[in-house]
Amino acid sequence: MASSSSLTLSQAILSRSIPRHGSSNPQSHLASISLPTFSGLKSTPTTVSRRRSSSIPSSSTRRQSQVLASAAVETLEKTDTALLEKSINTIRFLAVDAVEKANSGHPGLPMGCAPMGHILYDEVMKYNPKNPYWFNRDRFVLSAGHGCMLQYALLHLAGFDSVKEEDLKQFRQWESRTPGHPENFETPGVEVTTGPLGQGVANAVGLALAEAHLAARYNKPDAEIVDHYTYVILGDGCQMEGISNEACSLAGHWGLGKLIAFYDDNHISIDGDTEIAFTETVDTRFEALGWHVIWVKNGNTGYDEIRAAIKEAKAVKDKPTLIKVTTTIGFGSPNKANSYSVHGSALGAKEVEATRQNLRWPYEPFHVPEDVKKHWSRHVPGGAAFEAEWNAKFAEYEKKYPEEAAEFKSIITGEPTAGWEKALPTYTPESPADSTRNLSQQNLNALVKVLPGLLGGSADLASSNMTLLKMYGDFQKKTPEERNVRFGVREHGMGAICNGIALHSPGLIPYCATFFVFTDYMRAAIRISALSEAGVIYVMTHDSIGLGEDGPTHQPIEHLASFRAMPNILMLRPADGNETAGSYKVAVLNRKRPSILALSRQKLPQLPGTSTEGVEKGGYIISDNSSGNKPEVILIGTGSELEIAAKAADELRKEGKAVRVVSLVSWELFDEQSADYKESVFPASVTARVSIEAGTTFGWEKIVGPKGKAIGIDRFGASAPAGKIYKEFGITAEAVVAAAKSVS
Amino acid sequence: MASSSSLTLSQAILSRSIPRHGSSNPQSHLASISLPTFSGLKSTPTTVSRRRSSSIPSSSTRRQSQVLASAAVETLEKTDTALLEKSINTIRFLAVDAVEKANSGHPGLPMGCAPMGHILYDEVMKYNPKNPYWFNRDRFVLSAGHGCMLQYALLHLAGFDSVKEEDLKQFRQWESRTPGHPENFETPGVEVTTGPLGQGVANAVGLALAEAHLAARYNKPDAEIVDHYTYVILGDGCQMEGISNEACSLAGHWGLGKLIAFYDDNHISIDGDTEIAFTETVDTRFEALGWHVIWVKNGNTGYDEIRAAIKEAKAVKDKPTLIKVTTTIGFGSPNKANSYSVHGSALGAKEVEATRQNLRWPYEPFHVPEDVKKHWSRHVPGGAAFEAEWNAKFAEYEKKYPEEAAEFKSIITGEPTAGWEKALPTYTPESPADSTRNLSQQNLNALVKVLPGLLGGSADLASSNMTLLKMYGDFQKKTPEERNVRFGVREHGMGAICNGIALHSPGLIPYCATFFVFTDYMRAAIRISALSEAGVIYVMTHDSIGLGEDGPTHQPIEHLASFRAMPNILMLRPADGNETAGSYKVAVLNRKRPSILALSRQKLPQLPGTSTEGVEKGGYIISDNSSGNKPEVILIGTGSELEIAAKAADELRKEGKAVRVVSLVSWELFDEQSADYKESVFPASVTARVSIEAGTTFGWEKIVGPKGKAIGIDRFGASAPAGKIYKEFGITAEAVVAAAKSVS
Repeated sequence: MASSSSLTLSQAILSRSIPRHGSSNPQSHLASISLPTFSGLKSTPTTVSRRRSSSIPSSSTRRQSQVLASAAVETLEKTDTALLEKSINTIRFLAVDAVEKANSGHPGLPMGCAPMGHILYDEVMKYNPKNPYWFNRDRFVLSAGHGCMLQYALLHLAGFDSVKEEDLKQFRQWESRTPGHPENFETPGVEVTTGPLGQGVANAVGLALAEAHLAARYNKPDAEIVDHYTYVILGDGCQMEGISNEACSLAGHWGLGKLIAFYDDNHISIDGDTEIAFTETVDTRFEALGWHVIWVKNGNTGYDEIRAAIKEAKAVKDKPTLIKVTTTIGFGSPNKANSYSVHGSALGAKEVEATRQNLRWPYEPFHVPEDVKKHWSRHVPGGAAFEAEWNAKFAEYEKKYPEEAAEFKSIITGEPTAGWEKALPTYTPESPADSTRNLSQQNLNALVKVLPGLLGGSADLASSNMTLLKMYGDFQKKTPEERNVRFGVREHGMGAICNGIALHSPGLIPYCATFFVFTDYMRAAIRISALSEAGVIYVMTHDSIGLGEDGPTHQPIEHLASFRAMPNILMLRPADGNETAGSYKVAVLNRKRPSILALSRQKLPQLPGTSTEGVEKGGYIISDNSSGNKPEVILIGTGSELEIAAKAADELRKEGKAVRVVSLVSWELFDEQSADYKESVFPASVTARVSIEAGTTFGWEKIVGPKGKAIGIDRFGASAPAGKIYKEFGITAEAVVAAAKSVS
Repeated sequence: MASSSSLTLSQAILSRSIPRHGSSNPQSHLASISLPTFSGLKSTPTTVSRRRSSSIPSSSTRRQSQVLASAAVETLEKTDTALLEKSINTIRFLAVDAVEKANSGHPGLPMGCAPMGHILYDEVMKYNPKNPYWFNRDRFVLSAGHGCMLQYALLHLAGFDSVKEEDLKQFRQWESRTPGHPENFETPGVEVTTGPLGQGVANAVGLALAEAHLAARYNKPDAEIVDHYTYVILGDGCQMEGISNEACSLAGHWGLGKLIAFYDDNHISIDGDTEIAFTETVDTRFEALGWHVIWVKNGNTGYDEIRAAIKEAKAVKDKPTLIKVTTTIGFGSPNKANSYSVHGSALGAKEVEATRQNLRWPYEPFHVPEDVKKHWSRHVPGGAAFEAEWNAKFAEYEKKYPEEAAEFKSIITGEPTAGWEKALPTYTPESPADSTRNLSQQNLNALVKVLPGLLGGSADLASSNMTLLKMYGDFQKKTPEERNVRFGVREHGMGAICNGIALHSPGLIPYCATFFVFTDYMRAAIRISALSEAGVIYVMTHDSIGLGEDGPTHQPIEHLASFRAMPNILMLRPADGNETAGSYKVAVLNRKRPSILALSRQKLPQLPGTSTEGVEKGGYIISDNSSGNKPEVILIGTGSELEIAAKAADELRKEGKAVRVVSLVSWELFDEQSADYKESVFPASVTARVSIEAGTTFGWEKIVGPKGKAIGIDRFGASAPAGKIYKEFGITAEAVVAAAKSVS
């Protein structure tokens, strides 16, 4: 039932195994490749090569990667500028050619951002092309995801197996690894899924949060095993989106010093000059948000300016940095640069030719000149060295700090502690009635003891959503090791930040919370969770009219249906303690499928017949006085209305009816069961079915069929005490009894 | 079928009729009531009274309202401070008492914001309590909607019939006019529906946009008939929400000088001190957004500071103003003020008593002291005078500018020009194939000629959404009379701004556009459109995998279902030209129900059998070769897949089958048809039904039944040319033919 995180797991394990089992690994020969002399390293006049192919990184390997890292913001020799520009033009033309071949895509951004892209991937970032999942890599997010050819070109040059020449030629084609926007689940080397604007920069805040948190928890004075940067490129579009302001306000508040964002300031959006809709002073706004701001005035050819800005950004440890890089969109295109026409369409054969002339580019489409290829080739051995050095460091750490190492490993591999699920609380019908939001808090506080990667919080409703981890303090600038995250009233940013956390390391399990109705504020981020296989747990309380007096603005109606309709997400609506525990079990197991838990504000009894095992099947019988799989009527409820269904069943049974009560806690899980199991719950022959749920009836026809009845709410809610609304809206046991009689 | 705007219409008409038909109107006696001497008007030492009860406002009435208006920001005499504070405490205790009685609600904000609330409603704002819909009233929005008792108390004191003492006592109760958050459809005097944070301030931007636009279009040098302010109170919560940054960035860009926002800076949010999650510099951010910013350091008792700030704000004509007012949440409560505990719960009997002691308030719950009552009583005649003066001004305008006046009247009453629907384009099967987004643009450009209140735009996708009104330029700071609104990449702000425009005047018809998938970004605003009866038209293009290469981040799947599940909204998916025109007809007629038009990127043929009349029924037969209402199979399609259904029908008919093809363009409209009509389209006896729609099958069971088949997409999309994806996903005529054979 639960999709496992096997792929990520094996890859994470593989990432550590490469250097350890070097000789048996097909990539091991790379360890002996020399670094090229034109490596852009001012301080390394001679070739540095690996001397040994040992399973423990040698001191020279360590030195080599240190040199690579420390040289990151050094400037190239003058004599290298020609090659640098050749490399940058290679990026530009790979983008131009791929878009041209697909006759679809966005050449403008890659052409404008190629210089910063080159400097990042060639001079600054630490990564291992042959293991995109190496834990301590620097993270890169292209928040302006439409410019994905920039990233594909860079991954290709850097030697990632995910983007070979044939992949570039398959840009935007069926089943290619180079889809129209960056998708982490298609292309190793892509960290998160972007395209919907503003999501990426918010993901980046989550990635940087994860780094800061893990560093604070696991680094030791003598062993800094967590130490990487998060880089992001965002454009005017991302800047206009509210989500980016939310996330960047938090990044500033948290002082995420290792988050460095490049703002591609090109003055062009799809509708034309940004003058028509975007005249705010972005620099000042970011200063107000607590960021360090640098302006690179010449992002087109000011390579040293870009390098100096990165150096400065790294020196600022207590604030994230925004580097505003003024660029020309479509740089190099003589007739289309600096206009919206280069943003999102192929240049066209004529303009491609003019651009080739203009940039003196004599090569065939998709050609990477030999010297450029050679220049970039050092990243494969260099990356292997980075990883080898880190592995050696971690091996030492493991010896000195075995307990922390074990915990840390479970976070970076996603392997949970054996028997973790035994920590889940259990309940009996005698346990006190309670709201599922309270029961949720019991589960969270039980789980946090056995799941080292569990962390999260609420959008300023912690005391309503019941999400505080009582053993922990707040994740804050000065206490990044803590696990309660205070998101403020920023639902959208919260969701996207959690996506970043989840995709940082397989064992990080972020949860976040607000009122269920306010999933509307974060729906775009939730959809990206589902699409990008980020197993975020959404703790959504106040899940119906049962919240009472706050009224229709706060009462979800269509929300359960709206998520049941969304692919790759689990919509869970537990009815009591056991079902809440079962929902958490499912949510934790589903690391590649996010879960939404809809939880009640109001108290609910512990019902006889509920179970965690039942929840894992999505739908199951909680009580039945019929025999031979032939009840006279089936009553179906979810969440707080399961109690009503059970009460109605009691009434009907008093009158001698054979009644089955089914809890349909997750439609998705039930859909995945065998036909036999489904028939055992909903026999095709029994068409007398009544459902009750305090939400829209939309979709329930599937369950109750044309001869059944769905009791629900197909209007907006109302402001009044909860009991009163239930009664006025007919969400009652009496209504169920009446409906049951009418259909059976 | 279409719900009319009759209520608003009649009220708008009533608003003009009061002074004109004074003697026959029950409210006309108010015209002779004297203004009290303690009116707070420094410059009016003697009572001003109406001398005549004429149908044309007298010069003295005009003078009186001028005095009221010009005195708005004057300070009270020293001797009046005691009464002022008594009035402010009245507001505080009405809030405290109502929350206490309901044992539910938010006393903190009303207690802290009572001073600015008092000054706004008693000294600054122009309104007519007996006609909350008077066109030229100042608009007030409580963006921090949870503090609604502030607004209810003010409406009560000002003499609005919607909030009588019994209404205050019914706070948050079933069917009361004082629900838990402000709802325009429940409480006349409330302009928009707030509570979900950030929506209100964005609505206010829309209200201010509407004022600026109408002023630019209709004012004449000798007749300023549009001249009012928009005031808004927002709190820390609103400030954290991304939507407020989006909307405020636009307000700054547009230079909406008559928008004045009060930021209730109380340092407390639900989770505690704002220090835990909100440490940005709000003032600086607003300066970056192009606002004028003023800080009132003592919002608790600095009455003159507040007045001076408003005066300064009004003097700044080219920028909106943020007045940061530092207040104490729960001011007056000795033990709970300045803490989160006073935010969202009743004080409790003991603390209420302590607060009464502290503020020396000897009165019974809900008591309004006589002198306070007397003080506020002038707003009824004063408001009538404002309106009378305006009516006189408008009468003169009408004489001089009959054409503009007629157009203007249709905007403020919502009465459309007779025969407007004749402007809708028509198509025949011979008309060229076209995308429905292009057809949509033809409709918009046809409608703008006959609907003076139509205006709108796109979130930076005008050239993709095809939303430009070709006869008009851009609504900008220097050209506010134009009708193309450039929202930038700010979907959420866009939706909420359109809600504000729609609720400003019944005849304003805002439309807004983005890719259909990005409704996820603005879903909270769309829901408020539906709840608050704002007839916004959502032009949502690229409505399926048919958009092709942009891939799954851009391809809607669950979106049609998610809106079909939402109350009070029309989800329309037209298939061709006639259906697009029909969808616009429905959208324009439904002024109290928003419409979403899902439109194709790709070209579609003009199908035989489609019609605007069909669209108005929601579902209808476009072709049928059966007789006696007994087709062998019914094929059902929507939008771009109706063509596929029609093709499949052709195939099946060639094989001799009796096939009906149904277009189900709007489920909501179809649901509203008579049982007979529904039976004529979907005879109960015909269970062989196949639906095809390039989206989730969730919900289609209702239409196709357990014996039918729903062809759709229950996974995320893919990046590839559209035709390829359709084929790979099985959204083809062949699949329909096969399904039809399997079910019939």
